[in-house]
Amino acid sequence: MTAPLTRATVLGTGSWGTAFAAVLADAGCEVTLWGRRPEVCTEITDTHRNERYLPGVQLPAGIRATPDVTDALRDAQLVAVAVPAQSARATLEPVAPAVPDDALVVSLMKGVELSSDRRMSEVLQEALNLPPDRVAVVSGPNLALEIAAHQPTATVVASTAQATAQRVAAACASSYFRPYTNTDVVGVELCGAVKNIIALAVGIAQGRGFGHNTMATVITRGLVEITRLGLALGADAETFAGLAGMGDLVATCASPLSRNHTLGVHIGQGLTLDEALERTGGTAEGVKSSRSVLELAHTAGVEMPITDAVVQVLHHGLPVDRMAQMLLSRPHKAEGLQGSPSVEV
Amino acid sequence: MTAPLTRATVLGTGSWGTAFAAVLADAGCEVTLWGRRPEVCTEITDTHRNERYLPGVQLPAGIRATPDVTDALRDAQLVAVAVPAQSARATLEPVAPAVPDDALVVSLMKGVELSSDRRMSEVLQEALNLPPDRVAVVSGPNLALEIAAHQPTATVVASTAQATAQRVAAACASSYFRPYTNTDVVGVELCGAVKNIIALAVGIAQGRGFGHNTMATVITRGLVEITRLGLALGADAETFAGLAGMGDLVATCASPLSRNHTLGVHIGQGLTLDEALERTGGTAEGVKSSRSVLELAHTAGVEMPITDAVVQVLHHGLPVDRMAQMLLSRPHKAEGLQGSPSVEV
Repeated sequence: MTAPLTRATVLGTGSWGTAFAAVLADAGCEVTLWGRRPEVCTEITDTHRNERYLPGVQLPAGIRATPDVTDALRDAQLVAVAVPAQSARATLEPVAPAVPDDALVVSLMKGVELSSDRRMSEVLQEALNLPPDRVAVVSGPNLALEIAAHQPTATVVASTAQATAQRVAAACASSYFRPYTNTDVVGVELCGAVKNIIALAVGIAQGRGFGHNTMATVITRGLVEITRLGLALGADAETFAGLAGMGDLVATCASPLSRNHTLGVHIGQGLTLDEALERTGGTAEGVKSSRSVLELAHTAGVEMPITDAVVQVLHHGLPVDRMAQMLLSRPHKAEGLQGSPSVEV
Repeated sequence: MTAPLTRATVLGTGSWGTAFAAVLADAGCEVTLWGRRPEVCTEITDTHRNERYLPGVQLPAGIRATPDVTDALRDAQLVAVAVPAQSARATLEPVAPAVPDDALVVSLMKGVELSSDRRMSEVLQEALNLPPDRVAVVSGPNLALEIAAHQPTATVVASTAQATAQRVAAACASSYFRPYTNTDVVGVELCGAVKNIIALAVGIAQGRGFGHNTMATVITRGLVEITRLGLALGADAETFAGLAGMGDLVATCASPLSRNHTLGVHIGQGLTLDEALERTGGTAEGVKSSRSVLELAHTAGVEMPITDAVVQVLHHGLPVDRMAQMLLSRPHKAEGLQGSPSVEV
């Protein structure tokens, strides 16, 4: 086995970037964080805190932060990227020359680049000019505040190269953070992008006053339709049943911290999309991606009734009251991925 | 297609039996309930309420109830059974002659008969002397009180004979109750029996103070180990990703109404098993079945680490604090059903 990765750099001092820096430090790495804002870097280096994004959390003593990206990347063996998905390309392109030649690069980001429909690992490869075997993705039921509190958490480390996934997994594994490896990068990234749409649907149902049966049904059938899309795009069904699929979906739908879930609750309670966006502070990834995903599904010839209903409610004025009716009045079917009609009543 | 089933009898006036009687009535059946206690039957027939088991719920006007089982079963085309799992055989054997010759019989019960290790549909077949194609199972994310409140709910109707599943599905489908058919009876019944053990594990973690990452991880990895056992016993993997597997597991783990979940919370908070059983009113199905399931897994040569940890905590005095440690310190693995070791750290 190749030597362990012990010097890591994390780009981005938001909640997930900072929490993953702490994970790497607790796993034994020497960690440098890079962020744009000097005052946040000073706070992290001097007091080992990032009050804005991880309030109340004491970071491991070994972490330092700098606003100088060349300084941050010097000698890095592992580079984890946690910057906003839609600005990732613009952030990374100027940084490319500073990334050491043999460093592995890890995406902590979820989403699809709107202008290009590229997944985040593809954006990384293009912006930093990397071969796929130097890129990995970390995704799972990973609410940052809970990880920072050292709650037992599992995650998926995916790379097309199994050896890369293993090296990254070994670099971040600790007593509270348990990585599982996977080579289905397409599936893992698709899960991260589509789960926000399902979280919106669950939120809408809960805002409308529905309980746990409905929540569980929307999550289950939502995962079936994500899986169906994934299979059409070359992903493995097992990925969707795993931590990056079902795991992340369950954590997101159960947590009051998820913006997409919360936005859905507001919509279910009768707010307009604009009003709900204002209440939740401006953005919810699923609102943007729901239309792109539905187009993708049409192109692939795949039925996604829950995504369709969310798009109808958010973007075409379908009353929330008619959403459940729309989903329940579809022809009755056999369960499973095929969903072929089996009974008409 | 054969004629629709329009005359139904439900055996058992508990919360699920009564709620399913309402489902059948709302779907257009003429429904008779049978219960042991005359005063409950009178309450149902005269006031259309069952305050003890479905407080606050007004039942459809067409439902009547009787303590006379021969009267209840007369002319029934569909017989749904919702009596306690462990006494099902004793309840049904004397009733066998009263079941009409062409009636389909549906199990609403979850669990495994302790003395014989038989699934409930097998108990039905033996006690009533029925061929498999006259038996179906209904299972899913089906909290009775939410269904009685007409919240949108989906379920699985399983029978080895697809035509039987379709006829039962058609008999219970309504504007708020959406059945999916499945022919994997073994998988559907195994899901119902094992999910209570996973709900116990989730409860223990929550009682110990862990959050949504841990909950989602235990649910996800729990479903992986149920699936692994199911595959060894001839079930289909897709069933476990469906409403009777993932759906029921998510609803049970999210609901404060689940006894197994609540019992786990008490154990996580430091009560002994006896103290926790006293607090939750005596029984929690997963406590009994956890040992049987673990034995089944050993026999089949299948690893079930979460079930194992639950058995250690409940029956062998493992401190709760060491449970997370035990699960997190296992060798790191590739994700998926095989779980072959991939990295040692």
